[in-house]
Amino acid sequence: MSEWDAAAPGAGASALSGGVLIVGAGLVGASLGLALRRAGVDVRLRDANAAVVDEAVRVGAGRPAVADEPPASLAVAAVPPEAVGEVVAELLDHGAAEYVTDVASVKSLPAADVRERAKEPGRYVGSHPMAGREVSGPGAALPDLFEGRPWVLCPDDGTHQQAVTRALAMARLVGATPMTMTAADHDAAVALVSHSPHLVAALVAARFVDVPAHEVRLAGPGVTDVTRIASGDPELWTEILTANAAAVADVLRGLRTDLDRVLDALDSPPTGRTALREVLRSGVDGRARLPGKRGGAHTEFATVVVVVDDRPGQLARLFADASGAGFNVEDVRIDHSPGQPVGLVELDVRVGVEHELSAFLRERGWTIHG
Amino acid sequence: MSEWDAAAPGAGASALSGGVLIVGAGLVGASLGLALRRAGVDVRLRDANAAVVDEAVRVGAGRPAVADEPPASLAVAAVPPEAVGEVVAELLDHGAAEYVTDVASVKSLPAADVRERAKEPGRYVGSHPMAGREVSGPGAALPDLFEGRPWVLCPDDGTHQQAVTRALAMARLVGATPMTMTAADHDAAVALVSHSPHLVAALVAARFVDVPAHEVRLAGPGVTDVTRIASGDPELWTEILTANAAAVADVLRGLRTDLDRVLDALDSPPTGRTALREVLRSGVDGRARLPGKRGGAHTEFATVVVVVDDRPGQLARLFADASGAGFNVEDVRIDHSPGQPVGLVELDVRVGVEHELSAFLRERGWTIHG
Repeated sequence: MSEWDAAAPGAGASALSGGVLIVGAGLVGASLGLALRRAGVDVRLRDANAAVVDEAVRVGAGRPAVADEPPASLAVAAVPPEAVGEVVAELLDHGAAEYVTDVASVKSLPAADVRERAKEPGRYVGSHPMAGREVSGPGAALPDLFEGRPWVLCPDDGTHQQAVTRALAMARLVGATPMTMTAADHDAAVALVSHSPHLVAALVAARFVDVPAHEVRLAGPGVTDVTRIASGDPELWTEILTANAAAVADVLRGLRTDLDRVLDALDSPPTGRTALREVLRSGVDGRARLPGKRGGAHTEFATVVVVVDDRPGQLARLFADASGAGFNVEDVRIDHSPGQPVGLVELDVRVGVEHELSAFLRERGWTIHG
Repeated sequence: MSEWDAAAPGAGASALSGGVLIVGAGLVGASLGLALRRAGVDVRLRDANAAVVDEAVRVGAGRPAVADEPPASLAVAAVPPEAVGEVVAELLDHGAAEYVTDVASVKSLPAADVRERAKEPGRYVGSHPMAGREVSGPGAALPDLFEGRPWVLCPDDGTHQQAVTRALAMARLVGATPMTMTAADHDAAVALVSHSPHLVAALVAARFVDVPAHEVRLAGPGVTDVTRIASGDPELWTEILTANAAAVADVLRGLRTDLDRVLDALDSPPTGRTALREVLRSGVDGRARLPGKRGGAHTEFATVVVVVDDRPGQLARLFADASGAGFNVEDVRIDHSPGQPVGLVELDVRVGVEHELSAFLRERGWTIHG
């Protein structure tokens, strides 16, 4: 049985036997605390605002962190993107945890900040659970917020093996599906599927501010869905968008080109019909590519099994090799009984890519199984 | 008890005792048939495609219309906007129904078409139930599609009283909340809360067509909601958008101005923060103005009660007076026992407008109650 098998209750908890320290007990931090507590992990909570810790403790997300405790197995900086670098460096340099991750929705900027500020940046691995709500605070926390959601890890070639294995164990424990990509690929992807849609939802909702009441009264479930995420916290989203500005602007410039085509088409009915139809069809096609509620848009993955020996840094080197060469690992399982000299790492990749990845890893000296 | 009181089962059915003929048995037509059948109304179905009628009959939406039946009390043209004029004129001129309405999501263009084509356009009143789904066809029909939804009637000063009363009775029977506005006001409102959001959802979804699978795999519930309506039928939506092109373009030009501000802001982080925050805050404010699932955004209405005598055309003249002067009637109740010489019409309007409307109607010769 895999030590990290999410199906077995409590599995993976041993990687976190020294407890998890969560810094920032808002929606995501408190939800993570709830999920880890349910899996039997000791959770310490810290927040710049003592009242937030109190509320998170009240909902069952953990206990207040106390001074001079031994280092936690893993600390999680659940703070806005621009604060990650400072918080992570402080956690590492003051020995509050052996390894540190974060949950910010951008990854390049925090990683650069950590490299600049921390003495041992290799003990940090950036990560991002693709989960959230349009409400905030520990009172809105849900223990199953991460259930079935992707949790992206972005190790680089300096990342320590234990940082990756512990973050992986945590992601599995709370029911998420871990995957790895480079920080740049992650940031481009979230600009596309999260940050730009958020801004566009806000742009649509902003049209309703200065109109007569009878006009908005006709609003139905469609526009209610389109604009739901526009209720998100403007402060938090300003920081997220600023931290991923270039990638978001790329997506929105493409959207603007399409919008101009639509405006031209609307200015010349009925000859504009063709252009409108094309945009609407692209919308149908694009929508069909989104995963369904439970992975509806079925994607087949191929698995590459890599033999990893027990020397320090092997796992981090493997991820760095795969990610650095542009391979996106869609799911990761580690079959590695503690104390065994070797383990098997299963990397799921898009069908068609597995041979290329196997060949590439063999060339880099890895032993590929089967 | 009001003849049109929706709370009493079967009430209002007497206004439709000659049955309802539905032309176009797709999603909206078949849903209307289901809802009317449930209220005990005889429903005849007609569609250019015989297989569609068969399926609608199978789901219980009514019976196939047969040749040489006496005229129905009301016919409903449940066809795309550009077909309404021809279908309505044919229904009126061939005596298939005494009065006719439609359910198209634009109102100015069909009304102009009907005026041009029909011999007695006053027997037609345009209407629009604010209800739909992103799937189509009679197989997706729901009897409670209209439950609690606004149903807009757009009478003009030529509209016959019975056209309005029968369309009103039908809207109440299927659980909708009838309201009246001018066709131009209606078209501006739906451009804002329905047509533009549809196009923008398509623009967001269109970005997903040509990107790697691992990027769309990160999509979560947020973008799934933003783009849900982008799955709607491109042919139908091309016609809707073409028929309401000018009003939709007005809304989208405003949105593009905001989008350009956002792009400027993203190109100059961190100084762009202020502009981003403003757009995001406007999004929060605009979203808060949308009605909740069950009328959550609470709006108070004031009621103006008008005494209407039993002469032909009185009700139509009342609506034409109110709508023509720019008053939007948010709900209508008619307390009018058949055979009584006078009845009371309750017009709900926005609080603050009631005195102005009362004064205006008095000036036009109406008797205002209380």
